[in-house]
Amino acid sequence: MNASASIGVTGLGVMGRNLARNFARNGYTVAVHNRSAGRTRALVDEFGHEGSLVPAETAEEFVAALARPRRLMIMVQAGAATDAVIDEFAPLLENGDMIIDGGNAHFADTRRREAALRERGLHFVGAGISGGEEGALNGPSIMPGGSAESYAVLGPMFESISAKVDGEPCATHIGTDGAGHFVKMVHNGIEYADMQLIAEAYDLLRQVAGYSPAEIADVFRTWNEGRLGSYLVEITAEVLAHTDPHTGGAFVDIVDDAAGQKGTGRWTVQTALDLASPVTAIAQATFARAASGQSDLRAAYRGLPGGTTPPLSRTEAARFTAQVEHALYASKVIAYDQGWKMILDAAAEYGWKIDLGSVARIWRGGCIIRASFLDRIRAAYATDPDLVSLLAEAGFAQEISDAQVPWREIVASAARRGIPVPAFSAALAHYDTLRADRLPAALLQGQRDYFGAHTYRRTDREGSFHTHWSQPDRPETTA
Amino acid sequence: MNASASIGVTGLGVMGRNLARNFARNGYTVAVHNRSAGRTRALVDEFGHEGSLVPAETAEEFVAALARPRRLMIMVQAGAATDAVIDEFAPLLENGDMIIDGGNAHFADTRRREAALRERGLHFVGAGISGGEEGALNGPSIMPGGSAESYAVLGPMFESISAKVDGEPCATHIGTDGAGHFVKMVHNGIEYADMQLIAEAYDLLRQVAGYSPAEIADVFRTWNEGRLGSYLVEITAEVLAHTDPHTGGAFVDIVDDAAGQKGTGRWTVQTALDLASPVTAIAQATFARAASGQSDLRAAYRGLPGGTTPPLSRTEAARFTAQVEHALYASKVIAYDQGWKMILDAAAEYGWKIDLGSVARIWRGGCIIRASFLDRIRAAYATDPDLVSLLAEAGFAQEISDAQVPWREIVASAARRGIPVPAFSAALAHYDTLRADRLPAALLQGQRDYFGAHTYRRTDREGSFHTHWSQPDRPETTA
Repeated sequence: MNASASIGVTGLGVMGRNLARNFARNGYTVAVHNRSAGRTRALVDEFGHEGSLVPAETAEEFVAALARPRRLMIMVQAGAATDAVIDEFAPLLENGDMIIDGGNAHFADTRRREAALRERGLHFVGAGISGGEEGALNGPSIMPGGSAESYAVLGPMFESISAKVDGEPCATHIGTDGAGHFVKMVHNGIEYADMQLIAEAYDLLRQVAGYSPAEIADVFRTWNEGRLGSYLVEITAEVLAHTDPHTGGAFVDIVDDAAGQKGTGRWTVQTALDLASPVTAIAQATFARAASGQSDLRAAYRGLPGGTTPPLSRTEAARFTAQVEHALYASKVIAYDQGWKMILDAAAEYGWKIDLGSVARIWRGGCIIRASFLDRIRAAYATDPDLVSLLAEAGFAQEISDAQVPWREIVASAARRGIPVPAFSAALAHYDTLRADRLPAALLQGQRDYFGAHTYRRTDREGSFHTHWSQPDRPETTA
Repeated sequence: MNASASIGVTGLGVMGRNLARNFARNGYTVAVHNRSAGRTRALVDEFGHEGSLVPAETAEEFVAALARPRRLMIMVQAGAATDAVIDEFAPLLENGDMIIDGGNAHFADTRRREAALRERGLHFVGAGISGGEEGALNGPSIMPGGSAESYAVLGPMFESISAKVDGEPCATHIGTDGAGHFVKMVHNGIEYADMQLIAEAYDLLRQVAGYSPAEIADVFRTWNEGRLGSYLVEITAEVLAHTDPHTGGAFVDIVDDAAGQKGTGRWTVQTALDLASPVTAIAQATFARAASGQSDLRAAYRGLPGGTTPPLSRTEAARFTAQVEHALYASKVIAYDQGWKMILDAAAEYGWKIDLGSVARIWRGGCIIRASFLDRIRAAYATDPDLVSLLAEAGFAQEISDAQVPWREIVASAARRGIPVPAFSAALAHYDTLRADRLPAALLQGQRDYFGAHTYRRTDREGSFHTHWSQPDRPETTA
C-alpha cells in the first residue's frame, strides 16, 4: 500500500460514495473505507472504472494509503458516530494531517472537536455540504470551516468537485473552526423559510384564487422564469403537476399533510435565540412543520370558524396571483436578510471573518436554495462588503418599496379569509418592526421596571434608571 | 445550636431575604446563612422581630440548626453558583434530607441535579417561584418539582407562605424532578407573550386610534375590569399614566425602546423546538425583544415605506378600540393554549403527571401573569381534566368564535397600515393553521421527497413512499 491517495473517505453511505466518486472523477486518487468492508468492495467494483478508488479494509490500511499531509474525510452520522470515528483515526495521524467532517454536525460540536484536535497538532475541518445525493456526485455547494492553512491544501480539491456557476466554484473558506457548519445550518434554516413561503403562496392560490394544482404548477413555472427563479420553485411546479398513479388525482392531494424535519431548522432558531438575532420567518417555518404534525391539537381546533372565502373571478384571480408574487418575493428577501444578519451576529460572537458576498456566491449552485436571486445578493456585497442588511442596498430597497402594498394586501386578505400565512406575516411584521421610529418595547421596559425593578434607559440621557412605582414622589434611582 | 429550624435559607439576596422573612412571619423557625456573614446579621438585626430567624455563620452551623429531615433552601444565582452551593452542602446532609433550589434554574439542570442527589439519598426539589421581591415576601406562586415524598413534608410550608386566592394556596406539587422549573419557565414564556400582546395593542391604539398615553391608560383601566383583568393590564395602565418628572411628558415616550430579557423566554422557545410544540406567540414575543435591540438593523430599515395611516374619527377610534380588545383577548387565549400544550407535550416526553388545572389554579395569585382569566382555565380543567386544548372547551370556543371577525380585522388593518403586530398575527396564524382541513405541509412533503428522498405518507394507505421524480414511469418505492 503506497501512500498515494490525495484524500480518503470513510463512511460509504450514499453521500460518502458519491463524494468519493466525485473526487475520483475529477482525477484524485481516493482511498475508500467503510466499517463493513462489503460496501467498500461494492463501490470499487461498480465505479472503479470512473477513476482511481483505492479500497482499504482496516483503519491502518486506510491511513497508510493517504499521501501527506493526510486528508481524511468522515461521512458518518452526526453526533456520537462522528466522535467515535475521530477517536479511532486521530491516534493514527500525525502533525499537520487533516480530518474533514462532511456530515451535518452542529457547529458547537465542530468547535469542540476542532479545539481538541488542534491541541493534538491536527487540522479539523467541519465542511457543510449541500445538494443531497445528486449534488454530492455532480457538484455540491461546499462550506468548509477550519484553519486557513487547511484550506490552502483542501480548497483546490473542494473547488474542483463543487458545482460551478459562471465558471466560479461553489466552494470557499467560510471561516475558522465551526464557521462552515454554522453557515450550512443557516442555509438549511433559510431553506425551511423558502419552502414555507412557497407553501403559503400555493395555499393562497388554491384556496383564494381557486386554482387547481395543475394551474398552480403553471403559475410556478412562470414565476421560475422571473426573479423568483430557483430550484425550489422549479421542483414545486413539478410536484404540483404530478398526477398520483393510483387515484388519477393530483399527487399533492393524496400526501399526508404532516411535515417532517431533521433538525437543522430547529438548530438555526435555537442558535438565533442565543444570538438575539430575529429570524422570525425561519422560526415560523419550523413551527409550521411542528404544528402540522400536532394531530391531537388539529383535531381539537377543527371546525372552529374561519373567514369567508367567496370565489374570485378569473380576472380577480389573475390580479391576486400577481399580488402573491410580490408578497412571496418580499417575504423571501426578508427571510434571507434574517439569515444573513444571523451570520453577521454569529461572526461577531465567535470572532469569524466571513465574507457574506462569498456565501451568496457559493449558494448560487449545487445547494437546495440555489437561485438567480443569490447572484443579486453577491452583487450587493461586491458593491458594499459592509452591508448590515440587504435592504440597505438601493436595488433591494426599491423592490421592497414596489412590493409592499400588494404584500400588505395579501397578508390582510389571508387574515380576513382564514388562510394561515405565518411566514408571510412574520416577514411583514419584521419589516414593519425594524423600520419603525418608535417601538412599543418602551412600554415593555416600563412594565419590567414596574414588576421586577429591571431598570430602563432613557432617550435623553445616559444611564440606567429605576422608578419607585409605589412611591410617586420619590425620585427615580440611577443605577 | 439546637436542631430546631424547620427550614434553612442560604443566599440572602433580596429574594432569599424575603422568602426567609415570609417563612418566619408564618411561624416557622428559619435558619439563615450567607457566604458573607454581614448580610445574615443585617437580616436578623432588621427583621428578627418578625419571627424566629436563626443566624448561622458557617455551613456546619447552618446544617446543625436544621431539624430532620433537614430542609435547606438555596437562593443563589442559577448555574455554576447553584452547583457550588450544592457541592458544599450535600456532604453535610444525611439520607432523607432535602435541598430546595428556589432560583430560576433551567429544568434540564434540575433534572441532572435531582438524579445525582437521589443516588446519594437526598431529595432535590427544583421549585419555581414567581412574584418577584414583593411576592417572595407577601405570597408568591410556588411550583415545586421533586418527589411526592418531599412534597408531603414541604407542601404545607410552601402552601403556608404562598399567595392565596379564594382561600386556596398558590402552591402545588407540579411533578417529579424538573417539572417545577419547567412549568415556571413556561410561565415566563407566557409572560413574554402576554406583555408583547399588550404592547401591540398599545401601539395600535397610539398609532391608529390616535390616542395619547393617558387616554390609553384609561382604556387599559376599563379593560382591567373585564375579561382581560390581570396584574399586567393593571400595571400597563399605571406605566402609561405616569408622567416623566424631568420632561413633564408621558413616561413611555422617554424610555429607550430596546427591550431587555433575562433568558427564560429564550429557554421556553428553545425547549419548545425540541418538543416540536408550536409556541409561536411566545417565539414572536421573544424575537420582538431581540429585534428592538438590533440598533444597526433598525438604522438600515429606517425610512423604508409603510402603509398610510389616516387618522380615525373619535367614533371610528372607539369602534377600533373594541376590535383591539377582541384581538388581544383571542390572541391571549391562543398564547396560553400554546403554553398549556407545551406542558402537555413535555409531560409526555419526561413522564411527568401534571395536573393542568392545578397549574392554572396556582397562577391565579402571586405571579406576574395572575389574572381572573386563569380561573376560567382552572374551571375548564375541572370539567374535563383531559382537555388537549383550551379551545376544546365550549366557553373558550364560543369566545373565540365571537372574537374572530374583529381579530381578523385588526390583523388585516395593522398589515395595511404598517404597524408591526408579530404576536397578534402569529396567534391568528396558529388558529388558522390548526383548524385547517388541509395544510400545504403536503406540498412540503412532496418537495422533501423530490430533493432529499425523505419519503411521504399517503392519506389513503399505510406506509412510507418515495416517488422516483426523474423517472416518471417507475412506480414509487414503499419503505
